[in-house]
This record gives sequence, C-alpha cells and structure tokens, in this order.
Amino acid sequence: MTATLAHLKNHQVRLAARPQGLPKASDWQFTEEPVAEPADGGVLVKTLALSLDPAMRGWMNEGKSYIPPVGIGEVMRAGGIGVVVASKNPAFAVGDHVTGGPGVQEYCLVPADQLKRSGLAKIDLRLGSVTQWLNVLGMPGMTGYFGLMDIGQPNAGETVVVSGAAGAVGQTVGQVAKIKGCRVVGIAGGAAKCEWVVKELGFDACIDYKGGSVKDGLKEHCPNGVDIYFDNVGGEILDTVLTRINRKARIIICGAISQYNNTTAVQGPKNYLSLLVNRARMEGMVVFDYADRYGVAIAEMAGYLQQGRMKSKEDVVEGGVKVFPETLNKLFSGENFGKLVLKVADA
Amino acid sequence: MTATLAHLKNHQVRLAARPQGLPKASDWQFTEEPVAEPADGGVLVKTLALSLDPAMRGWMNEGKSYIPPVGIGEVMRAGGIGVVVASKNPAFAVGDHVTGGPGVQEYCLVPADQLKRSGLAKIDLRLGSVTQWLNVLGMPGMTGYFGLMDIGQPNAGETVVVSGAAGAVGQTVGQVAKIKGCRVVGIAGGAAKCEWVVKELGFDACIDYKGGSVKDGLKEHCPNGVDIYFDNVGGEILDTVLTRINRKARIIICGAISQYNNTTAVQGPKNYLSLLVNRARMEGMVVFDYADRYGVAIAEMAGYLQQGRMKSKEDVVEGGVKVFPETLNKLFSGENFGKLVLKVADA
Repeated sequence: MTATLAHLKNHQVRLAARPQGLPKASDWQFTEEPVAEPADGGVLVKTLALSLDPAMRGWMNEGKSYIPPVGIGEVMRAGGIGVVVASKNPAFAVGDHVTGGPGVQEYCLVPADQLKRSGLAKIDLRLGSVTQWLNVLGMPGMTGYFGLMDIGQPNAGETVVVSGAAGAVGQTVGQVAKIKGCRVVGIAGGAAKCEWVVKELGFDACIDYKGGSVKDGLKEHCPNGVDIYFDNVGGEILDTVLTRINRKARIIICGAISQYNNTTAVQGPKNYLSLLVNRARMEGMVVFDYADRYGVAIAEMAGYLQQGRMKSKEDVVEGGVKVFPETLNKLFSGENFGKLVLKVADA
Repeated sequence: MTATLAHLKNHQVRLAARPQGLPKASDWQFTEEPVAEPADGGVLVKTLALSLDPAMRGWMNEGKSYIPPVGIGEVMRAGGIGVVVASKNPAFAVGDHVTGGPGVQEYCLVPADQLKRSGLAKIDLRLGSVTQWLNVLGMPGMTGYFGLMDIGQPNAGETVVVSGAAGAVGQTVGQVAKIKGCRVVGIAGGAAKCEWVVKELGFDACIDYKGGSVKDGLKEHCPNGVDIYFDNVGGEILDTVLTRINRKARIIICGAISQYNNTTAVQGPKNYLSLLVNRARMEGMVVFDYADRYGVAIAEMAGYLQQGRMKSKEDVVEGGVKVFPETLNKLFSGENFGKLVLKVADA
C-alpha cells in the first residue's frame, strides 16, 4: 500500500486572502502535497465529490460565527463524499464510502484523534447516489428538513414559501412540505428553474424573481397569506414576504445569499415590525445542532426517494479541485440549477 | 340624573389629519359635545386618567396593523380609567371605577351592544391606584409580563436586557425578571432615569444611551452575553444588542419607538443574521392576545406591589384633554419619566 500511495499527489485549494465581495482568483492558492499513509487509528480518504454551498462564503470571513473562519493558508473547508483508500482503523475498510469534511483537496488524511471531530461516517450507496448524499441525504437535506420541521412546525393546509427553491435546501423544504400536506410556493431565478420546481418537484407554484414582481406573485399564489417562510436569500425578497405573513407565522432564517458578497452592511429587514403586527417569529438555525437526529431524517427521506415521492437534482461540475474557485461563484450568480456539486474523482 | 348631565359638556380630541413624522397641532381637532344619558343597558363613564402610549402613534397611520387605524374625524383612541356616573346596566353602579378605552374625551357613553367590545371592566382600587391601573396593573404591565414570560421564557440566572427601561413596559419587564431570578440590565436615556432604574427598581445595571456607548455598556454589564432582549425601541439599539446575544436567545419585539415618526422607511436590523449564528429567535407580541389571562397577571403583580417587591412609577401630567397633543409627543422625545398618564379629572 505504501508503494501505491507514494506516487500520489494531493492537489489542494487553500484560502490565500479574505475576499472583499465576490471571491476572485487571487483569493485562492493551489498547492500540491505528497499523499501520506495513515498512522495507527487513522484513515486516508480519496475525495469523490465536494459539496459547494453558500455558507462557504461566510467561512471565508473573519469574525465570530457558528464555526471559526478558515485560516489564511489553510485548505478551504468543504463537505464531501469519499472512498477509503487506506485504513489503520477497524471501523473503516478500504472501499468504504464515507461522508465528512475533507476540504477542497483530492485526499484527506484523518488521524485517529480527529475522526470524531471530522464527522467521518460510512454511507450506504443503496439509499442514494454519491451526489444525492451531498443533497437530499446530506447537509442541505438535513438543513431543509430540520429547519422546516423543527423551526417551521408545519401543519397540513398551511402555506409554505421557500426562496432558493431550486437550490439544494429549497428542494428539500418544498418537497417535504408537500408531503406534509402544505401548499408550497417557491421563489427562484429564471423560468427554467421555476418550471422545474413546479413540474418535477410538484410545488403548487414558483415565482420567478428575475422575471417579475415577487409581491404580485405572492398575492397571486398565496391567497391565504404565508404561514411559513423558509429564507435562504435575505434582502428584498425577505422584506417582501414579511408584508404577506399570517398571524403566528414562522420565518426560518437559514441564510442570506443575496447579502454574502456585500462590501457594505447587510440589508436588514425593514419590514420586521410585521413580526409584531402578526405575532410572528423569525428564528435562525444551524444544521449541526441536529447531528444526533440525522439518521432519522436520512431514513425518512431515503424512503421518499425510493417511493418516487421526492427527487434530488444536482448540478455536477466536472474538472476537479482546480475549477473550484469559478464553480463556487456560480452559486452567487444563481447559475447553478440544483445542488452544486464538484466532481473530484470517479467512484 | 338627566338634569345633572344636561349641563355637562364633553370635551374631545379628534384626529384631524394623518401625521407625517411627529404629530403636530394641525393633526388634531378639539370638539365639544353635550353629555348624553345612557340608554337601556348602557353606561356613562367620566374619564379620570388616560394612558399615553407609543403604540398610539401607530394607530394614527393608515394601513393594515393589529387594529384598524383611528379614522379621520374620530375621537383619538386611548385606554383609561374612569368612574361610572350614570348606568342603566345592573353590572355597573354609579361610583364604580372602571378600566376601558374611553378615547381622548372627558365622558364616554358605552351602549349595551358595545360593552364587551370596549373591554369595560370594574377595577379594585385596593389593588393599586388609578395611575397604577394604567401602568403595572394595566396594558403596559400586561405587555411586559406576558412578553417576558410567554415569549421570553426566562430562566433564573439568565441575563435580560430591556430598552425603554424607565418607561411603562420596561419597568414591569425588569422588575418581573429580577423576581424570577435573572440578571437585569436596562437601557434608558439620561443619568436620572438610569439611576432610578438601578436604585429604585433594583436592576443590576442601566446603560444610558444618551450618555455613552450601548455597545460598551453591554460588554461591561452583560459579561455572559444576553439571553433575552425585550425591545421597545428598535433602530440602532436593537442592532447593537444583536451583536451580544447568546445561543438560543429570545428577542421580544414589543415596539420600535425610535422608528414611529420616521418619514423614511423603518431601519431594519442589519445584524439580524446574528439570529442564525446564535440559533436565536425574534418574536412579536400584541398584548390583547393575552386578555383571558390578565386577571392572573394582575393578581400576581398586585401581590408584588403590596409586598414592596415591585414599584410603579407614573409621570402624571395635569391639564386634561386639551394638553393631550403636546403631552403625547413627550413620549417620542423621551421626556417622560415613567409611565405617561394624562390626568383628566379628580377621582
């Protein structure tokens, strides 16, 4: 095995500078390292695919957040799916597929003392494909599921609105809400995404924020107001939805992609006093808090996938870690269609 | 009785125009009407004191809110305490003290079919004085009590911050939070109010937003962060507190007095993503929702008053309804010290 590993190179993408606004080429550094054998208790994982998420933009900023920022010179943090290529740990065998946080690199060596912290866990590809394990069965799916169910607390017959509807989290939110008996209205950018969300995912309607007025769309498609709004975008769309909420509405603050590359202050929701008028609540969530319940949610959603009640669309970009920088930026222009995945190696 | 009433005049203050920014003299109209005898089932109440509240500013604006706006030409809506001077209803006797919504006028005729809607209810002056019934035992007290207890859900040892600390709602919030075992930090305008809040009401500290930095004050006085923030003011202070909240913090949105006279858009909380980072919640409340539990809260707080565990400070302005316009505006400059009450007649 040592002979096999010795000739391998690990290509990596590191954070070179803290971006101002949209990340640019000079914010990244490409490095190459030899691949090392794991020590006792450790595991070496070959990256198959990486999850590209809006939250990554936040990890690149200095300052207090729900996890520490990526350090300058460090391999960029990323979740991914891999395959074990060397193991000195009885819990992992060569050939096992695993989920974890390998970072933007081709190989990830996980020492024994970091196994738990890295969240390395075996996955069952019978439940879903590698890319589905980064989408509905992965962090975005868990985020959508627990945000909707635990914070949103949907009741059958209620109206659920979700922004970023064609994105990774939005797909799960809308499909789970439909399964739970809600009326579901998406907000997405462009006619193709909106059509897909309605025709393929079964949303009741989808408002194209690039093609028309979100306010008019909400009036038309939410005739009984909005009971739950799952917000991935912030900005003007959040403000508009706030004017249409019902009494005791729940707004899940999952992200604010419209604000992540701001070089000025974040735009606060100027209609937040609608919370008062409507006795409504706006609540933030971070998916890691639900780690001990991932298994239950994965089982439930894998069931929906197998029954054909749920779909999982990924936008898979080929090209490996070297195209990571430009691929990440697709998220912020809304170019991706479905969960954005960077393919790093064949399974 | 008819003879007695016939010579009485009812002086009234009506809304003449919808204010732009701070209400001005021309937004009001003074009228005089004869006082009429109640018909069968009705009650005539003489106003003793009126409650002047920030929320009144909202009632003067057009547009959807938690109650309809006051119409142009209508008597301005106001809560108050009065005494029954004529009754054709067996539930009310002449001389009974009552709470209700008489509006800004000296006499209020409540017909039988509006008794319930008006919320007319007898009060017991042994539990508190007329002005205390407009403060701790009245709407501000109920607002503070239910906002803190039901939305805030305080645990002993947690840190509670309240803005408008010397105001009507703030007094109750802070004192009840202390009784429940919390660390309580007020925010108020001016050294005199801050000193009173600490020395008389027993808050642990009070930050003078007019005299220094709220951010520095929070750092100093909330070394363990903020678990509950009861917001009466909005604007910059809300934004600053958002930077100091703890995980699973609760922010009660009770009002936003800093924004009520805006002629431009309300300032949204630009740090609202702190809700996400901290898995925190911001929730609006309207006191009327708790009407069926007022009795329990009044009994609890009257007990605290009698035991000397709670104080109730009112800023009583003499002069009757004719000084209503300038008295109301004291709220927006922060000139009032304690719950602002307009005295209309002797008890």
